[in-house]
Amino acid sequence: MLRPRQCGGRALGEGVKLSDEQRLDWLRLIRSDNIGPRTFRDLINHFGGAAAALKALPSLARRGGAVRPGRIATREEAAAELKASRAHGIVFVALGEPDYPLRLQMIDDPPPLLAVRGKLAILNRPLIAIVGSRNASAAGVKFAQSLAHDLGEAQYGVVSGLARGIDAAAHRGSIATGTVAVLGGGHERIYPPEHADLLEALLADGAAVSEMPLTWEPRARDFPRRNRLISGLSLGVVVVEAARRSGSLITARLAGEQGREVFAVPGNPLDPRAEGTNGLLKQGATLVTGAADVIAVLEPILGRPIEPPPAREPEPLAPAEIEPAADERARIVGLLGPTPAAIDDLVRLSGAKPAVVRTVLLELEIAGRLERHGGSLVSLV
Amino acid sequence: MLRPRQCGGRALGEGVKLSDEQRLDWLRLIRSDNIGPRTFRDLINHFGGAAAALKALPSLARRGGAVRPGRIATREEAAAELKASRAHGIVFVALGEPDYPLRLQMIDDPPPLLAVRGKLAILNRPLIAIVGSRNASAAGVKFAQSLAHDLGEAQYGVVSGLARGIDAAAHRGSIATGTVAVLGGGHERIYPPEHADLLEALLADGAAVSEMPLTWEPRARDFPRRNRLISGLSLGVVVVEAARRSGSLITARLAGEQGREVFAVPGNPLDPRAEGTNGLLKQGATLVTGAADVIAVLEPILGRPIEPPPAREPEPLAPAEIEPAADERARIVGLLGPTPAAIDDLVRLSGAKPAVVRTVLLELEIAGRLERHGGSLVSLV
Repeated sequence: MLRPRQCGGRALGEGVKLSDEQRLDWLRLIRSDNIGPRTFRDLINHFGGAAAALKALPSLARRGGAVRPGRIATREEAAAELKASRAHGIVFVALGEPDYPLRLQMIDDPPPLLAVRGKLAILNRPLIAIVGSRNASAAGVKFAQSLAHDLGEAQYGVVSGLARGIDAAAHRGSIATGTVAVLGGGHERIYPPEHADLLEALLADGAAVSEMPLTWEPRARDFPRRNRLISGLSLGVVVVEAARRSGSLITARLAGEQGREVFAVPGNPLDPRAEGTNGLLKQGATLVTGAADVIAVLEPILGRPIEPPPAREPEPLAPAEIEPAADERARIVGLLGPTPAAIDDLVRLSGAKPAVVRTVLLELEIAGRLERHGGSLVSLV
Repeated sequence: MLRPRQCGGRALGEGVKLSDEQRLDWLRLIRSDNIGPRTFRDLINHFGGAAAALKALPSLARRGGAVRPGRIATREEAAAELKASRAHGIVFVALGEPDYPLRLQMIDDPPPLLAVRGKLAILNRPLIAIVGSRNASAAGVKFAQSLAHDLGEAQYGVVSGLARGIDAAAHRGSIATGTVAVLGGGHERIYPPEHADLLEALLADGAAVSEMPLTWEPRARDFPRRNRLISGLSLGVVVVEAARRSGSLITARLAGEQGREVFAVPGNPLDPRAEGTNGLLKQGATLVTGAADVIAVLEPILGRPIEPPPAREPEPLAPAEIEPAADERARIVGLLGPTPAAIDDLVRLSGAKPAVVRTVLLELEIAGRLERHGGSLVSLV
């Protein structure tokens, strides 16, 4: 029984490595349709392992009312991805294994498998993210590069998203001390393509990280998902330049939700690229004019041990106890609609056991009928 | 007996106007050597009026050990200044009179007489200061002008120092709604001279204010003294652009000491003109990207009545009781040196009555041997 919320403790030297066979099953499961990081965790908790979960998927989807059940990744596909990845020098690190980044385990929806190219060890160094506009100003680029350089000199690894503008400047400034590029697509689909050389260069002392299939072409909507990894890997996020409603502000919001520090670089109010960062400062982000401002906040945090939050899941029940009765299933589905509802409310209003509600939600999700939102909210699609 | 610390209450409708004769004596006293606003207050408190203080000055100076006693302004000089001022339409408002700006009375060292040209009424409207670099950027000038305009539209009078750059932009932006120029020199010595037209133009709906003699040529060291009036007149100070160790930061510091709000406009960390403002933000100034940020802080303050702090001075003693004995005077002088000492410590260490210590300090000051610092600190010169 894997309980990811407890992996933090285990990973501190006690982590267990998956067997090759288990890793293959994990990859099949996470590459199957309708299965995101949260569903993956629920399935493993429910069935005790990926192999059992894979076997159960068709009947779960049927009970969830799938008209056309989602595709389950085949053993051959997963084996091919593992083989092709190995050829690139990519290592798959599984949630709960000793190499899995400690802070990333603490987020709500950590990727079960992280495909890492380059130096794995950098992921467990103190990391700080530096992000910002793609169409950055010359001053912004210069500042980001010098901030990344100074934080690198102070032994921090610098995390960013390999984008044009601020991201690339952050990687360039810290390329000699170690930098981590978190990809929106797969390792074979570097975006933007002109940063392929930058990526190759940063692998010498840093790493590239992806949770997506090797050949996944990143779409616009993959980047917010990717951004949770940028903040999730890091002690904090520095936003250098950001317009209103920009992706960097999503990263800052996620950082806040994940309990990470948020830093922002001030800018002239007449510069639209400073609207987002000045807004963050008004909301209480720490003002940064140099590396010392970041270090002053992070140094005290570094001293504290990383303690995983107490596990919230109850002990698993025997399958018979969590098998929903037909009327229970109908009652729970009846409570759902297109407006997100809290899972706690579903439990209360349905009168069903929490484990039963979770099972029904799992079935619906596998059937492609459920959408999960942040904060334990769910809705029908 | 005038007790300026209580004038706030009196000025709220109960203020008494000085007679012409009294105003002449006040002007003579404040124009005499070695007499600043604090000494003026002490003298009035000690002698019950300016006429008696003027009479006592020579003997005070002698007892304070003046080698060459300071010059006492003559009756003719004061009358000439009053007459010349009247010709310019200048009105002298005395501390404690109904027209004296309420908030300015609350500062530690309010000028006994304020020479006002233009619309006197603006001084008792809600005022906000906007200050900043003389060598401002084009963006800074544009921002200051538009901020002043918007605050003017919101019924605030805008106070500034008539300097080049940000100050002039602040006046220009609020010229139609009302703006106050606080001068470093006298009304006949406008600095910089090229802003004489701007000054004339702003008098239609605003005012120019000075505590200096009509023909006083402002020197560099007069501006920090002037800056206390900019902040003292205002609910708060917005610093738009400021390099490190600039005059605008002095105004911000004085505003803080006077219990006024401090606002700062953020800027790019690579711009030296933003070093001061970003520094203020790190110290807790409110970040301003538009008038709304200022109004949000000031609006709740406007609702509160202005309450003068409780009077700290004891009731005056009969002259015999505050006449220092020869050994007391020697003991107090012996405790003084070039390093600033707290007046409270002098009282404690000398064993003399507080009123006696104040008398000795007054004598030393009139004799030109004492320097007063902020926070009730004094040193020998």
